[in-house]
Amino acid sequence: VRQGAGEVVYGAGKTAEQIAAIIEALRDAGQERILVTRLDSEKAARTSELLDNGIDLGYVPDAQLALVGGKPSPTGNGRIVVACAGTSDLPVAEEAALTAEFYGNEVDRLYDVGVAGLHRLLAHAEELARAQVVIAIAGMEGALASVIGGLVSCPVIAVPTSVGYGANFGGVAALLAMLNSCASGVSVVNIDNGFGAAYQASLINHLSAGTPRAR
Amino acid sequence: VRQGAGEVVYGAGKTAEQIAAIIEALRDAGQERILVTRLDSEKAARTSELLDNGIDLGYVPDAQLALVGGKPSPTGNGRIVVACAGTSDLPVAEEAALTAEFYGNEVDRLYDVGVAGLHRLLAHAEELARAQVVIAIAGMEGALASVIGGLVSCPVIAVPTSVGYGANFGGVAALLAMLNSCASGVSVVNIDNGFGAAYQASLINHLSAGTPRAR
Amino acid sequence: VRQGAGEVVYGAGKTAEQIAAIIEALRDAGQERILVTRLDSEKAARTSELLDNGIDLGYVPDAQLALVGGKPSPTGNGRIVVACAGTSDLPVAEEAALTAEFYGNEVDRLYDVGVAGLHRLLAHAEELARAQVVIAIAGMEGALASVIGGLVSCPVIAVPTSVGYGANFGGVAALLAMLNSCASGVSVVNIDNGFGAAYQASLINHLSAGTPRAR
Amino acid sequence: VRQGAGEVVYGAGKTAEQIAAIIEALRDAGQERILVTRLDSEKAARTSELLDNGIDLGYVPDAQLALVGGKPSPTGNGRIVVACAGTSDLPVAEEAALTAEFYGNEVDRLYDVGVAGLHRLLAHAEELARAQVVIAIAGMEGALASVIGGLVSCPVIAVPTSVGYGANFGGVAALLAMLNSCASGVSVVNIDNGFGAAYQASLINHLSAGTPRAR
Amino acid sequence: VRQGAGEVVYGAGKTAEQIAAIIEALRDAGQERILVTRLDSEKAARTSELLDNGIDLGYVPDAQLALVGGKPSPTGNGRIVVACAGTSDLPVAEEAALTAEFYGNEVDRLYDVGVAGLHRLLAHAEELARAQVVIAIAGMEGALASVIGGLVSCPVIAVPTSVGYGANFGGVAALLAMLNSCASGVSVVNIDNGFGAAYQASLINHLSAGTPRAR
Amino acid sequence: VRQGAGEVVYGAGKTAEQIAAIIEALRDAGQERILVTRLDSEKAARTSELLDNGIDLGYVPDAQLALVGGKPSPTGNGRIVVACAGTSDLPVAEEAALTAEFYGNEVDRLYDVGVAGLHRLLAHAEELARAQVVIAIAGMEGALASVIGGLVSCPVIAVPTSVGYGANFGGVAALLAMLNSCASGVSVVNIDNGFGAAYQASLINHLSAGTPRAR
Amino acid sequence: VRQGAGEVVYGAGKTAEQIAAIIEALRDAGQERILVTRLDSEKAARTSELLDNGIDLGYVPDAQLALVGGKPSPTGNGRIVVACAGTSDLPVAEEAALTAEFYGNEVDRLYDVGVAGLHRLLAHAEELARAQVVIAIAGMEGALASVIGGLVSCPVIAVPTSVGYGANFGGVAALLAMLNSCASGVSVVNIDNGFGAAYQASLINHLSAGTPRAR
Amino acid sequence: VRQGAGEVVYGAGKTAEQIAAIIEALRDAGQERILVTRLDSEKAARTSELLDNGIDLGYVPDAQLALVGGKPSPTGNGRIVVACAGTSDLPVAEEAALTAEFYGNEVDRLYDVGVAGLHRLLAHAEELARAQVVIAIAGMEGALASVIGGLVSCPVIAVPTSVGYGANFGGVAALLAMLNSCASGVSVVNIDNGFGAAYQASLINHLSAGTPRAR
Ligand SMILES: Nc1ncnc2c1ncn2[C@@H]1O[C@H](COP(=O)(O)O)[C@@H](O)[C@H]1O
Ligand SMILES: Nc1ncnc2c1ncn2[C@@H]1O[C@H](COP(=O)(O)O)[C@@H](O)[C@H]1O
Ligand SMILES: Nc1ncnc2c1ncn2[C@@H]1O[C@H](COP(=O)(O)O)[C@@H](O)[C@H]1O
Ligand SMILES: Nc1ncnc2c1ncn2[C@@H]1O[C@H](COP(=O)(O)O)[C@@H](O)[C@H]1O
Ligand SMILES: [Mg+2]
Ligand SMILES: [Mg+2]
Ligand SMILES: [Mg+2]
Ligand SMILES: [Mg+2]
Ligand SMILES: [Mg+2]
Ligand SMILES: [Mg+2]
Ligand SMILES: [Mg+2]
Ligand SMILES: [Mg+2]
Repeated sequence: VRQGAGEVVYGAGKTAEQIAAIIEALRDAGQERILVTRLDSEKAARTSELLDNGIDLGYVPDAQLALVGGKPSPTGNGRIVVACAGTSDLPVAEEAALTAEFYGNEVDRLYDVGVAGLHRLLAHAEELARAQVVIAIAGMEGALASVIGGLVSCPVIAVPTSVGYGANFGGVAALLAMLNSCASGVSVVNIDNGFGAAYQASLINHLSAGTPRAR
Repeated sequence: VRQGAGEVVYGAGKTAEQIAAIIEALRDAGQERILVTRLDSEKAARTSELLDNGIDLGYVPDAQLALVGGKPSPTGNGRIVVACAGTSDLPVAEEAALTAEFYGNEVDRLYDVGVAGLHRLLAHAEELARAQVVIAIAGMEGALASVIGGLVSCPVIAVPTSVGYGANFGGVAALLAMLNSCASGVSVVNIDNGFGAAYQASLINHLSAGTPRAR
Repeated sequence: VRQGAGEVVYGAGKTAEQIAAIIEALRDAGQERILVTRLDSEKAARTSELLDNGIDLGYVPDAQLALVGGKPSPTGNGRIVVACAGTSDLPVAEEAALTAEFYGNEVDRLYDVGVAGLHRLLAHAEELARAQVVIAIAGMEGALASVIGGLVSCPVIAVPTSVGYGANFGGVAALLAMLNSCASGVSVVNIDNGFGAAYQASLINHLSAGTPRAR
Repeated sequence: VRQGAGEVVYGAGKTAEQIAAIIEALRDAGQERILVTRLDSEKAARTSELLDNGIDLGYVPDAQLALVGGKPSPTGNGRIVVACAGTSDLPVAEEAALTAEFYGNEVDRLYDVGVAGLHRLLAHAEELARAQVVIAIAGMEGALASVIGGLVSCPVIAVPTSVGYGANFGGVAALLAMLNSCASGVSVVNIDNGFGAAYQASLINHLSAGTPRAR
Repeated sequence: VRQGAGEVVYGAGKTAEQIAAIIEALRDAGQERILVTRLDSEKAARTSELLDNGIDLGYVPDAQLALVGGKPSPTGNGRIVVACAGTSDLPVAEEAALTAEFYGNEVDRLYDVGVAGLHRLLAHAEELARAQVVIAIAGMEGALASVIGGLVSCPVIAVPTSVGYGANFGGVAALLAMLNSCASGVSVVNIDNGFGAAYQASLINHLSAGTPRAR
Repeated sequence: VRQGAGEVVYGAGKTAEQIAAIIEALRDAGQERILVTRLDSEKAARTSELLDNGIDLGYVPDAQLALVGGKPSPTGNGRIVVACAGTSDLPVAEEAALTAEFYGNEVDRLYDVGVAGLHRLLAHAEELARAQVVIAIAGMEGALASVIGGLVSCPVIAVPTSVGYGANFGGVAALLAMLNSCASGVSVVNIDNGFGAAYQASLINHLSAGTPRAR
Repeated sequence: VRQGAGEVVYGAGKTAEQIAAIIEALRDAGQERILVTRLDSEKAARTSELLDNGIDLGYVPDAQLALVGGKPSPTGNGRIVVACAGTSDLPVAEEAALTAEFYGNEVDRLYDVGVAGLHRLLAHAEELARAQVVIAIAGMEGALASVIGGLVSCPVIAVPTSVGYGANFGGVAALLAMLNSCASGVSVVNIDNGFGAAYQASLINHLSAGTPRAR
Repeated sequence: VRQGAGEVVYGAGKTAEQIAAIIEALRDAGQERILVTRLDSEKAARTSELLDNGIDLGYVPDAQLALVGGKPSPTGNGRIVVACAGTSDLPVAEEAALTAEFYGNEVDRLYDVGVAGLHRLLAHAEELARAQVVIAIAGMEGALASVIGGLVSCPVIAVPTSVGYGANFGGVAALLAMLNSCASGVSVVNIDNGFGAAYQASLINHLSAGTPRAR
């Protein structure tokens, strides 16, 4: 089992039947907590019906994911900040925040901090300063990663989102902006990949001196 | 003659001989001030040699342009701010600033205001607040346009530059970022087109109520 | 409040419930006029039902937007021309024209002036000559911006549209054409972004000499 | 031999030695007239030296081509117009014009007719009206093809050029514009392919009713 | 009226109501024959219902177009060949063929001549030899244009189609292949633009020596 | 050692000193035959000077490679055909042909068989029919792979070349065409990768029934 | 008939009526086995209904294809391995595996061997070692082709799939990775083209020494 | 000062004069250690000459950087592994390794571990297992990041390099592969950005529980 207690299922391209079967098999094998990502509401409803009595899917529509068995107590070294600009980036932000919590991290959500209104971001200097890692999520021009990268001295993981239209090309504009960030300490994951950013953030937040935990 | 006193020559793809000939013809026709853009140092030197006595090319190496006949007194409604992050964007910034001055505008240069060091930008709140137009010049992730767009209430003309490497694709990353700016009031010109931004900024800064000036 | 009396809501990616709630909150806070952009007919109908008695959504299907509280009296320095080629560009053109009116500008609509029939454009020389700003909207090859840029001496804001097929690549062909315009005085906004063009045009049309209006 | 009297050699990627050898072989085989395209001045000079006495290379630096044996008398049905905006498109325009003449066509050159100055194009209504084919050559935004396409009722062959910088992407902006022309009757050849446009224009100008000429 | 007797309506993005109204207006204005392109079956049915008695829409589902008033007698100098590989290219091929007939041309259809079975193409040497123009239509790798270009000595107008999947990128693969054709005499129109190819082919097939027809 | 007797060194990005040292080390280790690819003439000359007495570099300028120790006797099941259109594709074709010979294959070279002159290709029906594998090399529109794929019933490995200009985008046009080939039995390697095609062709030509050779 | 007993029909873009008619015509002409690819479940059901009594469509939903007349006895020289990472690549993998069986090959399926879990791939060293050809199928980063290419000494045909999201661009990421494989002996087919890979693999697996089979 | 003792200068686009002046100013201000990246040998030599007595530039040609004042003693929590495939990726790998050492990290270099020879990578299981962070550097198909990501449980920072040709598009192939990695725990920096990867790796390796270090 990866990183202790939790197992993850990538829901896209799997049927409700397949997902329910995987969940039951994992539970039978003693797995307490299971995260199912990329699960739309309709498929979640069908999966829920298919599950045996006693298993609660724990579906979170805003994040399009399910948390079977709930979240563990936090075990990380510090806190993870998840920052984004607003409503349209929320699904990706919640995928990141809940994934981080699923892997045992405390999360600070800064969800109204787009660069067109800098004061709102600057008002959160304290949360930013105490973060072990920041996950910066942005669509459109993706400038948030650079601005945050300049404000903090911890690692920043940038997540471009597909939010926008026209010359955003489904997230490419934000992706390129983030890869070219003039702020040091920023790395990037795939477009809309909140899960991947949170997974790496959790690894960072759980590192201990010397040899890392066995896998 | 466009916009009163000045005529502009696009130097790229013209020989020193051609440029010198054009300058002399324009001077003979009574044109006092001539701007030659995209003129490298070598070609400028040869052009200078070719010019008849009495004509000073007025070459500015940092901006790769020549200002024959110098700059006029400012005639605009207000001031134009030219903002960029630092040394690598300087040639484009100076092309913009000198073009604006050539067309009769007062210019404030803010040349060390990259978004990875927000405090340097915020320290110039006053110049930004009194601008009629801001020209925001940035390579890499091009975030400067959005950040400035959020700070000011005047029009912002964004100029992406080809500064950077790898996935900046010769300025495409900054161009896309600027086109997708989440700040309202931002429009964009071609990569490295400091001239074009300044030309439009000057038009804006010279508008008067009612019918615009005859062309 | 930005630019005086009006507030704007970006309707894409918001539910009717969210939009109705925002409108009511803004009205309760004393906001008289609200513009909701990117609102399709179906969502508009649902929003309308959800609104409290006494609030008229003011939906305009042709522009896919709603003007709660109507338009103000014009306050700009001059007139804004909105020009496009024909029926397929109309939604973007009306988004631009109504946004401009929402922000207090007088608008001249030139809606049948594609470059394949130059005489129709040339017949409007008078409206073009008296414009403070022209918004040039075109899909396909986007040539309208260059042709108008050559005819007028005021700023031109170009809006590429996604109209076309095949190698237009959803508006990229027009976008590139406009960024490479051989006419000076042209800047560009994102594909289909009629709102953004009108917002900047309004800023330009409301500039006064000296210090710009406080934000 | 294709289209009667002339043979063509594509000079790019061939050495002066190879080109001289091909010319001599063709002359020995009785070929009177030979066109060598894409031949830079240096290679032309070396080729000239290598040629046996009596053969004049007939190099034209402006078009980067050589016309061994000169041009034939025109044999086409009508005239071909070659139109472009100015100095930077000249090499492509002259490649087209001289190729057309090499294949026996009368050519009208309209070389200062960019769309940012419509009156200059409109002043040539007569030449345009009497053309059998127009070759419209343009870099940057490539709008010339659409504007001419709207003015004439004969076929227009559009040649995008690589003239420009930044988001012109080596001619892609003009290429896409021309492929998306809103004017009917326009087809397109490869970027900078003045030869190809002229070759097809010549085919069109030499068509006779009924069966076309044997190949 | 363009090219004499026929008027054309681009159906995409127009409602059945708009199309019916345009048809009736044109008929009232004395226009006998009207071509409506890009008209899907459903919209055609509704248009048909809306038309006044006595007007037959003349819808052709295979070509997604309507021929109100039928086809005229051929008036061109010779014949136009329309060639393609098979079933998937048929809609584009028929759009081209019927457009050509609508403008008064005789058309030879070669519809099973993909380059993976060369003998089928070579079996049609006679039709190809007597063509005034060939319209070569192909998706996937678009090789047909080059192969036909090598076989004939008349102009070839190439139409890339969006047929294929994966790295065909909606017709880009075929478009690029055709623009880079190693055969001379080939020009290209937009992806799936059967109409545009036929329109230009008709212009070519109706050229007469000397001055072209007035527009 | 890969495939028995021969070892290969990729010369690009290595200095003459490094290459000479590698060759000597391999010879000292008993390696008789060494292939050095992507070696330009200048670097080859310096490498030759650096080599100890007794080692002949065996440089072939046309293929930009060196064959230390010459070629072995052929050991394959049958013959490999290497086909291309002409002079500009020759370096890639010779890289392929000599690599195939280096790995113990008999090679038939068909070097003047571009699709614009089909008869030249059809004249080689016999060589094509007896091939175990065909390597089809083409730049520009890359149609050769499809045409050959339709003629033969053995595997075809297609090599796009960077030959061409403008919209060939350094070989992308040919690459896409080959990936979209309508002929079955065609696979593709990287642009200009004559070595890779020949390596796989040799593997195919050396397969024996049952278990393949140990590596 | 190509390669003996089987005929193939490309189902995409054909109606159930067309497919049923083709199957019956081929059966009437004596064709025993017919493969129909790219056939979705709905169209398959309709096709099945339309077929005359006695013809079983043999539809395989997982591979989206039909095998009329079943599979022949294997006739190849050895075995073909089809390898992929997991559930999402299955449709392409089964298209490849069943196509290979249709053409008379024995197939080993390795379907859970993604590179993020190397041990699963390494556990299949034996099947890999005895393959005549490996078909390596992968979406996302497409690394499987390189890893397998390094492990085996037989030819590898790589199939990029469109599986993934964001910057996978519908399979382009995997396609580029495979074209740039650092392992020798790898060639590539179009995105999702399991059929094409299997067709070429079958050709390779049926090669005999000397002259290949007549077509 | 960033991260304690060291200051970094980006050498690209600065003259030797500028670089020398910056170094001297920093030394005068008490900065002991300075890293200058992207410094070619020629510029380094000139910079060295310009420096005052007593300052040693500490140029490392293999990494194209200078380490003024040498490296500090390591202060990180654990070790950083820098892994790449071979000679062509060395400059980027050394930029990463030396940057990491400059910021006080112990580095393990694994420089011959390309995925086409898995055994070489697997032989380093021990170094990989004890890493706090792995920097995976690869050109061509970039598969190394995914393979390492599957082997380790610590964070992996992937650096695509521009090594390769043809369809690698200057590093885009590797970049896309890395962004689409099927292994969790991988994030990506810009093409060739060894510095950026090492900077973030150092931040991760210096994190302590609770509040991170003040900046
Ligand atoms: N939203 C996501 N985006 C990318 N990868 C994911 C996501 N959710 C889960 N994964 C990965 O998918 C794996 C599970 O895939 P599977 O076995 O197909 O369910 C996990 O180990 C994660 O590495
Ligand atoms: N059609 C549009 N395109 C781009 N931006 C828009 C559009 N309509 C509104 N906006 C911007 O969206 C902001 C409101 O966003 P929101 O708070 O999400 O409703 C406004 O201030 C505008 O800057
Ligand atoms: N500038 C050009 N661009 C494209 N094709 C050309 C050009 N010049 C000549 N050609 C073609 O190249 C062929 C001659 O090629 P070659 O035999 O290699 O010299 C001619 O038949 C033309 O089709
Ligand atoms: N899935 C597939 N992908 C690509 N080509 C295919 C596929 N299935 C069949 N084909 C090709 O399509 C041809 C049949 O096409 P058609 O005659 O249109 O049914 C076959 O000979 C194959 O070359
Ligand atoms: Mg930072
Ligand atoms: Mg603003
Ligand atoms: Mg103007
Ligand atoms: Mg016309
Ligand atoms: Mg021909
Ligand atoms: Mg074949
Ligand atoms: Mg191998
Ligand atoms: Mg891992």
